Amino acid sequence: MNILDWNALDADGQARALTRPVQAVAEQTRASVAGLITQVREDGDVALRGISARFDGVAPERFEVGESEFAAAELAVPAELRIAMQQAADRIDTYHRAGMARPYAVETAPGVVCEKMIRPIGRVGLYVPAGSAPLPSTALMLGVPARLAGCREVVLCTPPRKDGSADPAVLVAARLTGVHRVYKIGGAQAIAAMAYGTESVPSCDKLFGPGNSYVTEAKQQVAQAGAAAIDMPAGPSEVLVIADAGANPAFVAADLLSQAEHGPDSQVLLLSDDAALIAAVQDEVEAQVAQLAREGIARQALAASLLIKVDSIAQAFAISNRYAPEHLILALREPRRWLEQVEAAGSVFMGDYTPEALGDYCSGTNHVLPTAGAARAYSGVSVASFQNQISVQAASAEGIANIGPCALTLARAEGLGAHANAVALRLGVTP
Amino acid sequence: MNILDWNALDADGQARALTRPVQAVAEQTRASVAGLITQVREDGDVALRGISARFDGVAPERFEVGESEFAAAELAVPAELRIAMQQAADRIDTYHRAGMARPYAVETAPGVVCEKMIRPIGRVGLYVPAGSAPLPSTALMLGVPARLAGCREVVLCTPPRKDGSADPAVLVAARLTGVHRVYKIGGAQAIAAMAYGTESVPSCDKLFGPGNSYVTEAKQQVAQAGAAAIDMPAGPSEVLVIADAGANPAFVAADLLSQAEHGPDSQVLLLSDDAALIAAVQDEVEAQVAQLAREGIARQALAASLLIKVDSIAQAFAISNRYAPEHLILALREPRRWLEQVEAAGSVFMGDYTPEALGDYCSGTNHVLPTAGAARAYSGVSVASFQNQISVQAASAEGIANIGPCALTLARAEGLGAHANAVALRLGVTP
Repeated sequence: MNILDWNALDADGQARALTRPVQAVAEQTRASVAGLITQVREDGDVALRGISARFDGVAPERFEVGESEFAAAELAVPAELRIAMQQAADRIDTYHRAGMARPYAVETAPGVVCEKMIRPIGRVGLYVPAGSAPLPSTALMLGVPARLAGCREVVLCTPPRKDGSADPAVLVAARLTGVHRVYKIGGAQAIAAMAYGTESVPSCDKLFGPGNSYVTEAKQQVAQAGAAAIDMPAGPSEVLVIADAGANPAFVAADLLSQAEHGPDSQVLLLSDDAALIAAVQDEVEAQVAQLAREGIARQALAASLLIKVDSIAQAFAISNRYAPEHLILALREPRRWLEQVEAAGSVFMGDYTPEALGDYCSGTNHVLPTAGAARAYSGVSVASFQNQISVQAASAEGIANIGPCALTLARAEGLGAHANAVALRLGVTP
Repeated sequence: MNILDWNALDADGQARALTRPVQAVAEQTRASVAGLITQVREDGDVALRGISARFDGVAPERFEVGESEFAAAELAVPAELRIAMQQAADRIDTYHRAGMARPYAVETAPGVVCEKMIRPIGRVGLYVPAGSAPLPSTALMLGVPARLAGCREVVLCTPPRKDGSADPAVLVAARLTGVHRVYKIGGAQAIAAMAYGTESVPSCDKLFGPGNSYVTEAKQQVAQAGAAAIDMPAGPSEVLVIADAGANPAFVAADLLSQAEHGPDSQVLLLSDDAALIAAVQDEVEAQVAQLAREGIARQALAASLLIKVDSIAQAFAISNRYAPEHLILALREPRRWLEQVEAAGSVFMGDYTPEALGDYCSGTNHVLPTAGAARAYSGVSVASFQNQISVQAASAEGIANIGPCALTLARAEGLGAHANAVALRLGVTP
């Protein structure tokens, strides 16, 4: 871990400290993903089968999970895990439901009513990765808001295991949330299948979920081509912790490590105004990392991590807002007092008893969040991510009499004669 | 105009009828835009000056509009237009304000409070085109929600006129809505300047607004590069009208023409279950188009337009949902009864007295809307487009005692030991 004194750095040094390692997509990745997408688009299931055999070592005759596999999954998942998933789903439901947009109507002039209707996006595709481990929690994070939105068709793709089956916990999670169809397809080929459709996979209007660099690149390419919308651009996961002198070094170290174990490219930052706390955290990290099953991964991420000494907690917030972290942990004595300082972040964790892991699994908030600074202009997944908001207006004869002259004046100013004519005809005046 | 009988077409013919002309971005456009972006990114204002001289025929010494030019604009704009802009801004404010997201908090378990905070996106860039005519209405449609969101810095770019000045009506509209800085820069170079920043133009987190194919391509490229988020992908404007036998052919024709005059690539569709109405609309279009100042443009758009005879109004809605039009006009006797059939559209106009022109200017709804079928998964611009929604969670010691075991179970199932450890440490148990 690298310790920096923020105020000893010049502007360039400060900028460098907050620059994420460029996730340069190799030209080869780009081309390879483009090739996979073209194959799936042109040859459908046949292409999927070939690609799956090549990358997953298995070419399922049938991609869609059938009833017998769902039934077997229910038996395979321990009761404790099933109950935990149900509890998590319930809390995700509670939080997301409370924030749902409501339709509204307002009279903007006598006889002119403007409304907003909320409609589910028709067909949505969820991607649940299974790289180093399958992630049933991601199925919950995507499936619950899709169900709340009321999407007509919810499709989920997840990579097959070597024996051609899907991870049972992912299947149970998908069923818990009411996902309609699950397909054993992974990687860029899954994204292509859901964007363009194949004989067995329906094409979807919008695609959601995290994934490796191939999945991410595939999402970008299908979005760019206009084939499907996507939830957000994605990059490696990251956490920024702001800790004061009263923070518990063991807790802070554990939070840094739970980010670091995600992957070698995970971003981990600690900002504190207390040098002793920083030193104590460093010692704790060293002690804890040696105990981890994923020690190797965590050590790689830690090598690029930063512990930054700042002059004040206020300065820490200024730096955090500039960095715009995916996860922001406030290991502070009075976190609520500081909350209003947060301008850009994906999700905020307040105080000593709210580790990021709670939000990852079961506090109720969503764990699909903007990374790589995207939190400056993107928000995490919510029910709104699965809905369209459609504006509606209705003017009566009185209504157009009231606002028509305003429209006429503007249409004339913009030189749009047919616009003026459409209004003038209704008003019975000369355009 | 082309008349089709929907039910006489086979599935392929139906699919073809609803396929928008591919807006293939020529490789040359793509490369040329990429070149402009690189120039602006590397050489800043110097590059802007050179590009502006080449494309706009003028190279302003200073791009930012100063106080004296704003003052001159106030004098140059007729009182009637100023009043109309103010009225439109007020109604846009009323409608958009009523739909603003509110922060909320919910206890998802005893001792676990999850919240949503709303924060303005820090720096936003608005693009107001001035191709065949300057569009002060677009400045209102973007400036009002940016102000309601509370964005810290609102930048607006609009192309310079031949004499180096900006359109006075656009300047007055920008001032009306509280835009902070206006720059006389147009085209792809304006998008590049707002995405990457130059000596005089601040870099922005998100870019908004319509534009020609160069502007659209530039927005896509800077978004793809992660330099700035964008409001939505954009294409030519379009309208779909559903009319019954009782509709007024002159009104319907005027609405089709007010779409057609936007540009030669505008999309215009009429669906009706009444052949007589279709014939009458066709006659009316012919009579009205000859009177238009923009007759040439409208005729080009009409050449690709479709008048489609359907079996029933219900069938018309099924077709409309498949097409997902930017503008949907319901020229029906009981439009409200049909409204629930609308699944995908940008904005809906109900009844005989609500021409699209009202929404374009001053009903209060936004005219920056998804085109080219994007309405299946994108919504029009709203205050939310200028805001981030940040989730916040706070667990007390009691809270983590309640939900921590659930997180532990899930972390173990996903093989994430450091996640489990971060929870276990707080619970005082073995991970």
